[in-house]
Amino acid sequence: MSLVITNIGELFTADDELGILHDAALVAEGGRIAWLGPAAQAPAADERLDAGGRAVLPGFVDSHAHLVFAGDRAAEFAARMAGEPYTGGGIRTTVAATRAATDEQLRAAAGRLVAEMRRQGTTTVEIKSGYGLAVEEEARSLRLARELTAETTFLGAHVVPAEYRDRPDEYVALVAGPMLDAAAPYARWVDVFCERGAFDGDQAREILTAGLKAGLGARIHANQLTAGPGVRLAVELGAASADHCTHLSDADVDALAGSPTVATLLPGAEFSTRSPYPDARRLLDAGATVALATDCNPGSSYTSSMPFCVALAVREMRLTPAEAVRAATAGGARALRRDDIGVLRPGARADLIVLDAPSHLHLAYRPGVPLIRTVLHDGVPL
Amino acid sequence: MSLVITNIGELFTADDELGILHDAALVAEGGRIAWLGPAAQAPAADERLDAGGRAVLPGFVDSHAHLVFAGDRAAEFAARMAGEPYTGGGIRTTVAATRAATDEQLRAAAGRLVAEMRRQGTTTVEIKSGYGLAVEEEARSLRLARELTAETTFLGAHVVPAEYRDRPDEYVALVAGPMLDAAAPYARWVDVFCERGAFDGDQAREILTAGLKAGLGARIHANQLTAGPGVRLAVELGAASADHCTHLSDADVDALAGSPTVATLLPGAEFSTRSPYPDARRLLDAGATVALATDCNPGSSYTSSMPFCVALAVREMRLTPAEAVRAATAGGARALRRDDIGVLRPGARADLIVLDAPSHLHLAYRPGVPLIRTVLHDGVPL
Ligand SMILES: [Zn+2]
Ligand SMILES: [Zn+2]
Repeated sequence: MSLVITNIGELFTADDELGILHDAALVAEGGRIAWLGPAAQAPAADERLDAGGRAVLPGFVDSHAHLVFAGDRAAEFAARMAGEPYTGGGIRTTVAATRAATDEQLRAAAGRLVAEMRRQGTTTVEIKSGYGLAVEEEARSLRLARELTAETTFLGAHVVPAEYRDRPDEYVALVAGPMLDAAAPYARWVDVFCERGAFDGDQAREILTAGLKAGLGARIHANQLTAGPGVRLAVELGAASADHCTHLSDADVDALAGSPTVATLLPGAEFSTRSPYPDARRLLDAGATVALATDCNPGSSYTSSMPFCVALAVREMRLTPAEAVRAATAGGARALRRDDIGVLRPGARADLIVLDAPSHLHLAYRPGVPLIRTVLHDGVPL
Repeated sequence: MSLVITNIGELFTADDELGILHDAALVAEGGRIAWLGPAAQAPAADERLDAGGRAVLPGFVDSHAHLVFAGDRAAEFAARMAGEPYTGGGIRTTVAATRAATDEQLRAAAGRLVAEMRRQGTTTVEIKSGYGLAVEEEARSLRLARELTAETTFLGAHVVPAEYRDRPDEYVALVAGPMLDAAAPYARWVDVFCERGAFDGDQAREILTAGLKAGLGARIHANQLTAGPGVRLAVELGAASADHCTHLSDADVDALAGSPTVATLLPGAEFSTRSPYPDARRLLDAGATVALATDCNPGSSYTSSMPFCVALAVREMRLTPAEAVRAATAGGARALRRDDIGVLRPGARADLIVLDAPSHLHLAYRPGVPLIRTVLHDGVPL
């Protein structure tokens, strides 16, 4: 079965060579892109979708999300926005609720978020564990995440759980040992929240090195709150991505620019914590690869909307709309070391969106408006 | 035909006395709210809608929108975001495109935006003219707007059109005379863009006074770019609303606080022009009534999303989520001098939304996410 999309007003390929085509068409077959080019030269196909002059883009690649959890923290959010001290448990509230939830409850909640993301144009999402923080719990979270995506990330080192508060090094050994062993069969990646109050550089190195040895790829929550060692560690270990990158030294920027490690920016977190945004221009101008992701989680960024992140990236981080869309598609794919998604070119997966707008500019020009008209995943409309 | 909504987790009435109810129910009959109260006491009705523990709010009242136009200005937006000079025509580009469009084209474009707003929870929208700027053109815009809403506003004084560039006072006389006469049958309100580069205080006074004499209510685009005379003129003339209020003197704040004139804030415009946001807390703390609206227009704020404006109001203007939702509902109704919308209480219109969330907090807590599950307009689901 083949499908031709005709009458594409703007085909935003996110491919460096193909760029943006106008008056274009695209053929999908067997879940892959078989052909794209000028509308007048489009080959025949079994089915036909008329884009009506609208823009077609790659599906968004959300390379950073925390979707396996129970409960929400709306009251904590409201207190933070009001500048009031909040005496609730923060992340530990979510850990307790997640541990208390059944598989069925966690599966339903995560599935709802993935479906919500799909409706907003996300065709690939990475999902982290990190609200179990115990051997069986982390393995369970990843087993459930694996039902929803191939891009699963073991984040046992999200925070030191209450029961290990006074012996963090024992927790690090647990994460790098038995917890990793239990998690690895369900995980593609290993991640550490490397930050003051979470895990320091030595602890992060121990866990990531163990993960790499177990065959996982590395990624790091790095430099969100302080210019710590996370980014340089990510580059040193060949991590696919350093995520957040809000506080960077010149050495951090140079390290990212001179490496394949992607700088994944999460402006939803800055929006929802009223924090300063990362300096995306400095990274781009230095030559680093930038990705955008939602960081969807119940504490610091409960948006699931890649279009919202694109609009923030333009307004607050001064990316051009084209740079922001590339970061949300091809950039996310680079952050997951994937070359089959996040771009529209022959051979890539037929994961794409038709906007209710004539151009990719409208994702920033019309902020907050649900502009995703059609989503194709592996060539099949949702 | 009556409808009972049961199992409402949070009933956000936006009514000062009723406040927020939990475990509530609501009965609609004949397009009005017949009853609301504890779920256990809900009377029977012909039909039943189970809210499943979700939040129910009044439909949004978007009291400031410019929807009758042709074309878009995406390239101008992109240039502005990139900090580049833009040599296009600005508002005059839209005037030319609008004049060149057929009734059918304008009707279809405005209808699409109203439908888009409805899907995002807006059950009442004000629509301004202002891209015709000629007698027949302004009347035409209002005639088309009247097909979509009762809240139509004559904004012949949006900008001085090119053909009157050298004789603005002649244009003011035209607006206050023949144009007003042609527009008034289709308009409820008269509005002036009182700003340096548009119309000064004396010109605004002349036009608004003529409009009031013709039986219209007054509203003003005031103090967007500079602390000009707009706000004080609005209060002096008993205008329903002074809109923008970005630059206010202490006297402006005092004037608003001591009057029934609503301060309508349009954070979408600040977002899309990268401008500083108005000081909403100063207005609320002084005792002024605040409304939120989209300012939906192709130049400075092409969002149609009231949920997006609520999220911005919380993040950027430090309203609490409850204050922001009240401003987007009851505040908008006050700005239109309506007491039948924007609140949920017996006798009010059954214009309401069911969120895909347990609380109104989620509109700010989950920015960018389409959370509007069900919209009832006059008691009828869309
Ligand atoms: Zn994260
Ligand atoms: Zn306006």
